Amino acid sequence: MIRITAKEAAEKLLKQDNIFVLMHRSPDGDTIGCGYALCMALQQIGKKARPLCADEIPQSYEYFTNGVEMQEFDAEYIVTVDVADRRLLGDLEMLYGDKVDLCIDHHGSNREFAEYGVIAADAPACAQIMPEVIEGMGAKITMQIADALFTGLTTDTGCFRYTGVTAQTHRTASYLIEKGARSGMINRLMFETKPKRQVMLEKLAMESLQYFCGEQVALICITTEMMQKSGALDHDAESIPSIPRQIEGVKVAVTVKQKADDYFRISLRTTDEIDASEICRALGGGGHRAAAGCSYHGTLKDAVDTIVRLSSEAVENAV
Amino acid sequence: MIRITAKEAAEKLLKQDNIFVLMHRSPDGDTIGCGYALCMALQQIGKKARPLCADEIPQSYEYFTNGVEMQEFDAEYIVTVDVADRRLLGDLEMLYGDKVDLCIDHHGSNREFAEYGVIAADAPACAQIMPEVIEGMGAKITMQIADALFTGLTTDTGCFRYTGVTAQTHRTASYLIEKGARSGMINRLMFETKPKRQVMLEKLAMESLQYFCGEQVALICITTEMMQKSGALDHDAESIPSIPRQIEGVKVAVTVKQKADDYFRISLRTTDEIDASEICRALGGGGHRAAAGCSYHGTLKDAVDTIVRLSSEAVENAV
Repeated sequence: MIRITAKEAAEKLLKQDNIFVLMHRSPDGDTIGCGYALCMALQQIGKKARPLCADEIPQSYEYFTNGVEMQEFDAEYIVTVDVADRRLLGDLEMLYGDKVDLCIDHHGSNREFAEYGVIAADAPACAQIMPEVIEGMGAKITMQIADALFTGLTTDTGCFRYTGVTAQTHRTASYLIEKGARSGMINRLMFETKPKRQVMLEKLAMESLQYFCGEQVALICITTEMMQKSGALDHDAESIPSIPRQIEGVKVAVTVKQKADDYFRISLRTTDEIDASEICRALGGGGHRAAAGCSYHGTLKDAVDTIVRLSSEAVENAV
Repeated sequence: MIRITAKEAAEKLLKQDNIFVLMHRSPDGDTIGCGYALCMALQQIGKKARPLCADEIPQSYEYFTNGVEMQEFDAEYIVTVDVADRRLLGDLEMLYGDKVDLCIDHHGSNREFAEYGVIAADAPACAQIMPEVIEGMGAKITMQIADALFTGLTTDTGCFRYTGVTAQTHRTASYLIEKGARSGMINRLMFETKPKRQVMLEKLAMESLQYFCGEQVALICITTEMMQKSGALDHDAESIPSIPRQIEGVKVAVTVKQKADDYFRISLRTTDEIDASEICRALGGGGHRAAAGCSYHGTLKDAVDTIVRLSSEAVENAV
């Protein structure tokens, strides 16, 4: 993959047409915000563009997703946004995994699966890179594009809370608000409104909370049984990892989510002194220093034992 | 009170020495951040300055409060920061309430008790005004001053979440981070650190969650048994009322907290269409439209039945 700047990416996009913009599976606010913002910008300057995702886009993002006109055409150029690895394309991988022309991402662990890539590893959200790409094409940041990008920025930073937030992140937020982003409404919608099923899931998950390694490792489980009992949807589980992470003295917060009988997704949140991506790499995963993930095939007990052992070792080595 | 600009306030301060900087009672991050930042700046340019508060400053703010040298001198000039009303000075009111020379505040409701005032009603935190005052005096925003002001900015805006946040708020945050504010550490300390006992209490409280009136009324209980079992302190329970409040479709969120065997404190949070203070008034309480409280003498069952009946009636009448 050839690394290019946001400005160079804008120049490449200007030369293309009939563009598919791919988001990652289990889409979050950042991939959706960036994907739709880019499509709105491309359509604005007269190009055909279409956002694609292997999974359904939650209706809660409608306030900006309805700004994209759904056009029918055959793809001539493939872009991914906020996708660190082609496998994260889900069912779209088979169709487009080896055909990605341009990858716009903010994961230092990006697997370089595209021909060209804008990888801003210092940005806590992919949305932080997008204004430069969009304005580099000569498109305007409309109110809806601002809403989309503000959504990406705020959701991927936990409302500007996480350590990855920089002066530039706040500068981008300020700029997007000036362009009309409805920050108050978006934050209320993204952070202060939970469906009843999500609250039910949180309750069940909290009952599974366990401590290890002198209470420096906290672990929470989400089983398929909990998902069924609560009626929760996949994205309702996104708030769970913050529960163990907020506990005083906890250095590694682990969330184990059952995806099938013998298949688990593990997500880690760590404090400054522990590298989450290093722990996850031991299980074939990756991510950022403070937040990373991996998968596990086996029983729930083995998944828990393994990640607790690796996390405890990391805690002990960090002392 | 004569209204002046931040720049004019800086000029006034430059002409003075032996300055007391008063904060409001029950001090929060904004009044403490502004008070200590101003004292650090004044000391930096060679003046005697001293922060004063009727109540103790919590130790959690030590990372910037230790930047102020405690000097002994008699006050010649009195400044208040983030104080909307002289009564909010607490025990300091009697000594200084009618002697305030300069009031720096962001409350539109400011009672104009000082001789001169900088009142920026469009700022969601007093800290948003301070860089202009400090730099207007020719003082530098040091790392610790940046930490202090960032603390004010982030705590008074719920970490940039509330609707009062503007483009300027993010611009100020960006500027303070550039000046060295440790935003990640501060946010983590202020918003993401819960003692284990508080998480335990939340778990127990969530198990008590009940819905009434077609799921438009949600109720959560905190019994003395839960407090004992979790080892939680009184202020650990402050996060509980937000649990029922965040549930989609809930119009009245009730928290019933047992204070003694037959004595309960009830707190209500309501959506726009329901007046919480009116419901509480029926039980001798009061408050604001969106947040109110009252007490109840009797059994837990009676407390719950009564407040659920009153809340359900309010929901039905609001339709």
